[in-house]
Amino acid sequence: VAASILCIGTELTRGEIVNTNAAWLSEQLTRLGFEVLQSVEVPDDPVSIGDAIRQLAERATVIVATGGLGPTTDDLTNAAVARFLGVELWRDEPGLLALRERFAKLGRTFHPSNAKQLDFPAGATPLPNEVGTAPGFSIKIGTATAYFLPGVPGEMKPMFTRSVEPALGGVARQGMHQIRLKTFGMPEARVNDLLSGIEERYRVTLGYRAHFPQIEVKVLARAATQEQALALAEPAANEVRARLGSAVFAEGDVTLAESVGLLLRERGLSLGLAESCTGGLVAQLICERPASEYFRGAVVCYANGVKSAVLGVDERVLAEKGAVSAEVVEQMAQGARRVLAADVALAITGIAGPSGGSVEKPVGLVHYAVATAAGITLRQTSMPRSRDQVRLHAAYTGLMLVRQVLLEGHMAR
Amino acid sequence: VAASILCIGTELTRGEIVNTNAAWLSEQLTRLGFEVLQSVEVPDDPVSIGDAIRQLAERATVIVATGGLGPTTDDLTNAAVARFLGVELWRDEPGLLALRERFAKLGRTFHPSNAKQLDFPAGATPLPNEVGTAPGFSIKIGTATAYFLPGVPGEMKPMFTRSVEPALGGVARQGMHQIRLKTFGMPEARVNDLLSGIEERYRVTLGYRAHFPQIEVKVLARAATQEQALALAEPAANEVRARLGSAVFAEGDVTLAESVGLLLRERGLSLGLAESCTGGLVAQLICERPASEYFRGAVVCYANGVKSAVLGVDERVLAEKGAVSAEVVEQMAQGARRVLAADVALAITGIAGPSGGSVEKPVGLVHYAVATAAGITLRQTSMPRSRDQVRLHAAYTGLMLVRQVLLEGHMAR
Repeated sequence: VAASILCIGTELTRGEIVNTNAAWLSEQLTRLGFEVLQSVEVPDDPVSIGDAIRQLAERATVIVATGGLGPTTDDLTNAAVARFLGVELWRDEPGLLALRERFAKLGRTFHPSNAKQLDFPAGATPLPNEVGTAPGFSIKIGTATAYFLPGVPGEMKPMFTRSVEPALGGVARQGMHQIRLKTFGMPEARVNDLLSGIEERYRVTLGYRAHFPQIEVKVLARAATQEQALALAEPAANEVRARLGSAVFAEGDVTLAESVGLLLRERGLSLGLAESCTGGLVAQLICERPASEYFRGAVVCYANGVKSAVLGVDERVLAEKGAVSAEVVEQMAQGARRVLAADVALAITGIAGPSGGSVEKPVGLVHYAVATAAGITLRQTSMPRSRDQVRLHAAYTGLMLVRQVLLEGHMAR
Repeated sequence: VAASILCIGTELTRGEIVNTNAAWLSEQLTRLGFEVLQSVEVPDDPVSIGDAIRQLAERATVIVATGGLGPTTDDLTNAAVARFLGVELWRDEPGLLALRERFAKLGRTFHPSNAKQLDFPAGATPLPNEVGTAPGFSIKIGTATAYFLPGVPGEMKPMFTRSVEPALGGVARQGMHQIRLKTFGMPEARVNDLLSGIEERYRVTLGYRAHFPQIEVKVLARAATQEQALALAEPAANEVRARLGSAVFAEGDVTLAESVGLLLRERGLSLGLAESCTGGLVAQLICERPASEYFRGAVVCYANGVKSAVLGVDERVLAEKGAVSAEVVEQMAQGARRVLAADVALAITGIAGPSGGSVEKPVGLVHYAVATAAGITLRQTSMPRSRDQVRLHAAYTGLMLVRQVLLEGHMAR
């Protein structure tokens, strides 16, 4: 079945933001068995919007559109659709009342321009927005059904999942099962080489998605039924796990920090951090999901004075060996373990750049230490990349080191 | 002058990769004075490619296309263009010879399928590829000129810059100037209402981009020359600043953390943090850019034991008032200022959710304190949203509070 995507927004056609909605919607529609014929971006301009709708409705059965539903004057989608169809706008008064009540409940002021979001083309069915304030709508355009969703990904995705996907359910859906395995520490070409032959042997399709610093391996099986697809995908995924070993840290939406948290909770251990060059990034990755069961806290010791005053790093060692050294990272980890009263402490210190590097200690050099009751584990990496990449890579390497120490099992509380 | 973009590749319409080429090309064409009317993605299919070319050539003077120029069987662009125009393919024999020599020089094997990359539609002018092996080409399509470039960004970008951009030089280049102002703390509808009338009075276009939790206001002026556009944009931007007041925290690519860092550096002051519910997020926002000139560090006190042991928060106060209270956040800020030896300390404690809320202290309640030599400033917000949003909103609110304390100027070192 043919589908098309329309992304509305001058910020797209001026290249101010990268369009991630089109890729996400393409993936969803493909998963649901649609063939995406075209994905189009147009500016917030009624004529351009109307022209694009006409083009897409000629060939597609389903059109999913995003953007231009907000309260500001450059949000023109509802009016443009009405203009294209030659119908009037009607105001959804019950919806408006509900929105006003929601604003009141949240203690937010309702502004006159918010009301405009409840003006729909005649014939439209509003779609609720559970996250933001702009509702979407669906409407027939010739023989096609079009769904208009917000442009903000955090609002668009739940609206698609809750309102659009069930409506598309009637479409013949093939049996399909996908298992996503997340890896860290191996280059993409090596992952690819290690997995050669699996597609043929297990009758699955392997996909790779590099999302720095991790590489996701997607094992996709298609069959007549969902159960048959599952029965193909699972042994193939086990083979992928066996071949990639400890590089696979999680499955599906589980993050690296969560996978480490799970190991800590299973063992009844707590974690503390001492972060220098990562500057709170590891703590932030941990606290993205609830972590109070195992996370004590972190000392972000950006200044050397904090390393000595708070973590007790010896000032002479700091002066002699430098802040980026095995000696200092070891003392940081031991200090964090003591000060934060944690069973396990991870310390990271390095040179994130862009400045601060030298011949002996270039940008990208990072030292790591994991301290436990059983002792200390040290590591060092060197990765001459951008500041963001050095920091992200260091945060992942540090968490992988904690994972390794926990899995190797020589832990005493 | 009107331009359009065509991105060819089934990996795009299946959502396997995010299309960054469209955003990059849109940005370049906008910079060169073009108005991008449409950006279209189609699969590697001759009919879809031909249909899209027909649509785009109707309105655009310039078409820039990417993808489908490679050696594999799914690379069909050259053949699809020839088919659409009803012309034959011709083989660029001198180009083929040069390519063979390049392969030999690099010690790479020349495969028969590589020759296919040198087959161009009659009327095409080849464009050299200095990075990869697939040349591009330009060709007239009706009144439009189309440029076909590789899909790999690392090959596409230099080809655009070296071969396409100079060819577009003849196109009348309009003067354009855009000023981007970043705001926090006002809902989008209120920002819009406060700025009503500016577009007409100053002859500019206002655009809004909500990127949670900030809202960017874009002031765009077009005129015959760059200087005239600048002369229109600047007074309009000043009017926006005047109307939105302290909600505007930065211009262009400057982040909130950077704008706070700038104020601190100007005053010769250092900053320290005590983070509970934000869990290192504020530190992370600060350390995204170099910050060692003013940032001392942070204590991420996720566990209450860390609040008392490291920051010296009174255990009785913690027990009586709870970790999320004005009393505790004040002691956190004072403790961070002392322990981290910082001139200014920001403390944040709240309930990020999804669990942990109560009737008196619901999810989304956050307390803030900024401690300086001159005293303490407290704030409290309540924002019942998702965990990610509560934390991001709290981090921004905290940084804005530091900004406000610095700007109000009652600071002694």
